[in-house]
Parts: sequence; C-alpha cells; structure tokens
Amino acid sequence: MSIITLLTDFGLNNWFVGTMKGVIKNINPDAEIIDISHNVNNFNVCEAAFTLRNSYIYFPVNTVHTVVVDPGVGSKRNALLVKTEKYFFVAPDNGVLSYCLDCEEIEKIIRIENSKYFLIPESSTFHGRDIFAPVSAYLSSGVDPDEFGPEIKSYKKLKKSVPRKISEREIIGHIIHIDQFGNLITDVPESYLNELFALQKTNYFKILIRDYEIRKIAKNYSEGKGSELIALVGSSGYLEIAVNQGSAKEVLDFTEGGEFIIKVI
Amino acid sequence: MSIITLLTDFGLNNWFVGTMKGVIKNINPDAEIIDISHNVNNFNVCEAAFTLRNSYIYFPVNTVHTVVVDPGVGSKRNALLVKTEKYFFVAPDNGVLSYCLDCEEIEKIIRIENSKYFLIPESSTFHGRDIFAPVSAYLSSGVDPDEFGPEIKSYKKLKKSVPRKISEREIIGHIIHIDQFGNLITDVPESYLNELFALQKTNYFKILIRDYEIRKIAKNYSEGKGSELIALVGSSGYLEIAVNQGSAKEVLDFTEGGEFIIKVI
Amino acid sequence: MSIITLLTDFGLNNWFVGTMKGVIKNINPDAEIIDISHNVNNFNVCEAAFTLRNSYIYFPVNTVHTVVVDPGVGSKRNALLVKTEKYFFVAPDNGVLSYCLDCEEIEKIIRIENSKYFLIPESSTFHGRDIFAPVSAYLSSGVDPDEFGPEIKSYKKLKKSVPRKISEREIIGHIIHIDQFGNLITDVPESYLNELFALQKTNYFKILIRDYEIRKIAKNYSEGKGSELIALVGSSGYLEIAVNQGSAKEVLDFTEGGEFIIKVI
Repeated sequence: MSIITLLTDFGLNNWFVGTMKGVIKNINPDAEIIDISHNVNNFNVCEAAFTLRNSYIYFPVNTVHTVVVDPGVGSKRNALLVKTEKYFFVAPDNGVLSYCLDCEEIEKIIRIENSKYFLIPESSTFHGRDIFAPVSAYLSSGVDPDEFGPEIKSYKKLKKSVPRKISEREIIGHIIHIDQFGNLITDVPESYLNELFALQKTNYFKILIRDYEIRKIAKNYSEGKGSELIALVGSSGYLEIAVNQGSAKEVLDFTEGGEFIIKVI
Repeated sequence: MSIITLLTDFGLNNWFVGTMKGVIKNINPDAEIIDISHNVNNFNVCEAAFTLRNSYIYFPVNTVHTVVVDPGVGSKRNALLVKTEKYFFVAPDNGVLSYCLDCEEIEKIIRIENSKYFLIPESSTFHGRDIFAPVSAYLSSGVDPDEFGPEIKSYKKLKKSVPRKISEREIIGHIIHIDQFGNLITDVPESYLNELFALQKTNYFKILIRDYEIRKIAKNYSEGKGSELIALVGSSGYLEIAVNQGSAKEVLDFTEGGEFIIKVI
Repeated sequence: MSIITLLTDFGLNNWFVGTMKGVIKNINPDAEIIDISHNVNNFNVCEAAFTLRNSYIYFPVNTVHTVVVDPGVGSKRNALLVKTEKYFFVAPDNGVLSYCLDCEEIEKIIRIENSKYFLIPESSTFHGRDIFAPVSAYLSSGVDPDEFGPEIKSYKKLKKSVPRKISEREIIGHIIHIDQFGNLITDVPESYLNELFALQKTNYFKILIRDYEIRKIAKNYSEGKGSELIALVGSSGYLEIAVNQGSAKEVLDFTEGGEFIIKVI
C-alpha cells in the first residue's frame, strides 16, 4: 500500500485535481490517493500549512503528503521533497511544510530537479500536474529520494503566529483559523495556558473578546447554553472560542487574524 | 473488500474529513472509503438521515455506513453501532439512523463504550476522528460488534414528515428536501398517491402550490415546457415538483418545510 | 485495475454521487472510482465537454470515462458507449463527448439499450444511478461493449468555439472558461497564434480586452507585476489572460463567452 494525500487550492469546480489523480494512477496504479482538502483559499500558504499540520500525523507511516498551494508556480522557487522519519512531503518551497516539519525528525531535504520524473512537455503554470503529481507517484512506487535531485540543507519557514505577553498576567492571542462551524481557533496551545496558570498560581482568568468575557474552559461544545460564547481546548490542541450549535464567527463578526486578551486574575 | 461510507456536516474546506480517512487507513489499510456527502447543513440531523436513507441501500452487503452529524458531541449522548441483516451503521444516537433503520432488519444495537478502540488521547470535540473513524475501521477489519460495548434495546427516532389528510379528498404535503437542481422533494410517497387515487376512484387531481396548479404526473423532467411547473415521482420514490432544465425552487421561491395541497377531483 | 472516472453536475450537497459509487462497487468491487468534477454548472454540456477534454488523456489506458450532465434525462436522447483506441466513454448523446472524440481514434459507438445491465426498477429521472453507473461498472469488469446495444454510426457534436478572423491582421477570440483563480481561458490555441505570427512575419501584437492592452506572452504567472494583466499559454494549450496571484476575472469583470481582439502589428 502506498498512500498519497493531496492538499491544494485548486477547488473542485474544474479538472485540476482529477487530472493530478490520472497522472498519479498512470505512473503508480497501486497508489491510493486521499484528499485532505482542495478548498484552501487561493494562494494561502499559511492556511495550507496549518491544515496539513492538523492532519498529516494521522496517516500511516510512509504516506506521501503532497501540497500544491503555489503562488510562485513557474518562477524560480524550488520544489521540495522532504523525507522525515515517518513521512514523505512533496511541495513548493514556500513555507507550506514548515509547521509540519517543526514537529518531524527530518532525514533529508531534496531539491526536485530531475526532469526524467516530470510530465513532458512540462507546462509552466500547472506544476501540480506536471511535477508534483508524477514525482509523488514515482516516490510512492519506491524510487529513491536521491533520484529526484540534490540534497539541500534548508527550507523556507513561515513566521508562526504566537500569543504575545503584554504583562505578567495578560497575553494577546490571535485567531488563526475559523472552521466550518464558525469556531474560532486561536494560536494559544493548551500547554501555554497551563504554564501561565502554573506561573501565576491561579486557575482564574478572563478571556476578553470584543465586548464579551469568558471565565472558564468548557469540556465540550454542549456545555454552552443558547448563543453563549464558550472557550475550550479544540481537537488540534489549541484554545478555541465557540458557540454550542451556533457560530462564534457570526456572534462576534470576527475574521482570521483578529485579537483577544487572556487576563489571569 | 471492506467499504466504509462517510456522511458528515464537516464541509470540505478543512482537514476534518481527510483526517478521519487517515485514521481509518492507519487501522485498516484494506478499507475502501467512499464519501456520501460532507455538505449536510451544519447540525442538520434530519437532512443527514434523509440523505443516508436515499443512498445506503445501493452499497454492497457488509458496508459500514458511518455518519457524523453530531450537534451533541462530547455530551452524554450515546454513540451507536447497529448491525442489520445487510449493513453496519456507526453514528451518534441522535436519530440520524432512524429513517434507514425503519427499512432494515435490525440484528443488534451496541452502545459504543470500549475505549480500547478509540484514538488516545480522545478529544471531546472531534469524535469523528477519535471515536467514529477508528471504530468503523476496526469493525470493517473484522472486529466483533460485541467488542465495542454492551447491547442495548433501542435508539433515538426522528419524527418523520408525513402528508396530512385534511379532508376525504385533500391532503397537505411538505417539501422535505430541495436538491442541486432546485427540484422540490416532498414527503408524499408514490404508494400514498396511488392509494388516494384508488380510494377515491379517480386519477384526476390538482396540486396547489403557491399560485400554481399542476394537473398531471409527468414521466420525466423533459416533459416540462419552458418554465412550467411539473410534478413527477422522483428517483427516491417521492412526489417531486420540478421545472425542466430550470429550478422549481427559484420559480416558487420555496424553502424546505413549505406546504402544498393535493386535491382529488 | 479498472478505473472509472465520474464527471457530473450533481454537486456535492446530496446523495447522488455517493449513490452512483455504491452501485458501481456493488457490481464491480475492483473498480477504482476517481472524481473529475461534480460541480459542472447545472445542465452545462459545453463546460463538461471542455472539462473532460482537458483531463481524460492523463488517465491510464482502458479507463472508463463516465459523464452525467444530462438535461434530457428520461427523454428520447440516446445513451452512448464509445470505445476508442485507448479509452471507453459512457455518457448521454448530447455532445458532451465531442471535444474528446475529436482527439481520439474511435473504434466503436454503441447505443446503450440492453436493460439487463440497468438497475431495475429504473427511474426516469436518475439515469446516473440506474443506467450510467451500472453500465460503466459492467464495462469496467470486462463485459463486451457489443453486449450493451447495437452499433451506431454517429454521435451528437457540439459547435466548438473558435477564434474568428476579422481582417488579415486581426482576430476575435472568446473566453471559454474562467478557472478557480480567475484566469480567463480563451479559444485561441498556441498553434493558431504561431501560424498567425508566421503568416504575418512578425511577433509583435496587441491583445485588446476591455480598455486594457497586452503586448507580450509571459512564460508564467509570476512575471506579472501587481495587478497587471498578462497573457500566457496555459496548461491546456490555449491562450490565457491572467493576473499574478490575483484574478483577471475580477480586474476585468468578465464572464464566459466574452470577446477580445488580437491585432498583429
């Protein structure tokens, strides 16, 4: 079994994703292709990096994770193949892998160059079809990573959103993603909160967001009554602002990047 | 071969569905995963139940049908595994299975409890990933249903929309679903219509919807001329209001739940 | 291995596509199903034909390409099975295959009639489920094409959008598709441009679109500065109007079918 996951901003209203799958099956009939998402917002490398980081670890060892969110397609940006202890990653070198690779033991970084493994003639606008799909297919069929190009030492990293301490007892957090249900996912990991509480020797706090105040961490969405805002630790391990069976996004009219305050009391 | 179908309200703009698939393949590499839909409206248990009822029967015997439309995630609602003569169903106990189970020979209902088959650490907000996906994967790989928890006797049932008789010759029907093409699917089964006609010894009738009147049952959409409203028996066996190559929804500006009258004459 | 691709206008908000997949797997458990797209605009045969033409060739030999964009479902339009040198095609006879078949060596055209291979009872509104899915499944499992019905000689062809010469040195091109990124794909193939330039012994030209003027063919999107309009040959081999990391559609407020001028100077 060889699994290839696909994560792109190609959308589902065209032939782009289907075409990549045709290319892959043509090279490696045994590859099993699983979609992570194709609805990343156009060119949003940061969103793709976050999406991949929240899902890649759940796949079997040796899965090839292929990401094509590629605003620089056809320019001089590199194409990367990264082998870690457990997975392979294939993507443009624009930072899209950096949140994942932060958590992985990197064994080798290859700059993809060997056009023997590209679709010929290669376009300069659809590398998903012409480079990333065939390289992923050959890789999943057992071709040695070194075959694809020279080893390099580094890859582009995205600046990561992190909470900002504004005083001993106060931090500013940021909304880094709003999900399907309107839940606001923040950049405050559970561990960060716990340290803050330990340091200040208290479990009492206020979360201040717009004109609202939240004073406890719920265990699950259904603790929320009516359209009450609640805070809880979501499934990705980050603090989340939510409304039970409703949309925190709508209640707060909030967008990604928005800020809020956590005040220990 | 072991097929697992997925039906959720997770949407396709995030990592939720891809993550469930990773979890499944990690446990049962032979599982074949087929999407029914991930675009059920948020928390709409009723729509999910109707969607499942219209599709589950077309899958091979022993398919595991997994539904995660779960407004009560993390609360005390049960998680169910139901074995029928032909299929397995895995879902929260919120009624989402009830339209299907009405049509099935139930052999066993299990309350899913054995955390040995859960992802550890289990979140309280993403049971799709932590409970429903792994349980479905283990089930599809041959684990005995009794392994997952104790047998129970009943499951939650949804109130079903049914046509209402308001006189000997008059019934009120309801729109229970509006499809991709703007066709209005009603809660009036073909058999109900036939009985009504047999009882009243006539085939003549009027369907009254908004200011429109329909006087015959078409065989297919293409009988409709221009933007004329037609009635026909749709592929799910229910009376449907449609416009040939157009949208009855738009012509009537109708929404789900709307009513109309059938009058035998 | 037997691959079946699906291309429909069913959307992903309902049970239509999932149901077709269930029917296929029930008949041929070894079939591997790959989605090309299900978001073709309702009834848009032309868009589906273009989508298929841009993707079908990338699939392995013997793939069964199944298209259900079928405004005439249930009427007297034929259902077709076409065998070419490399592929099988299954679709309503409404022109949806014609752009592909232009590029293929046709071996046999069959009118699908043998109800032995249909789902019984067959509906008159969902031939995707009742005819196209089962026929594709049987075909992919090795049933001889002749089994499905009589051979016929022709199939319906769509009028193809082509550039129009208005003078020796001037042509009018048309926008035939706008993709996910707002790129405008035209009906001017690269070869047509090259011939025009060769004939007029020049490489100098102006593309006039709305109030904009473009004077060169870029190699890739990233040559564009800011919201500058650029022209390039896209991955399907046609001239394309684009904005680097932006949307030509938005800049120009253009829709499909719109015209522009290429003037050799």
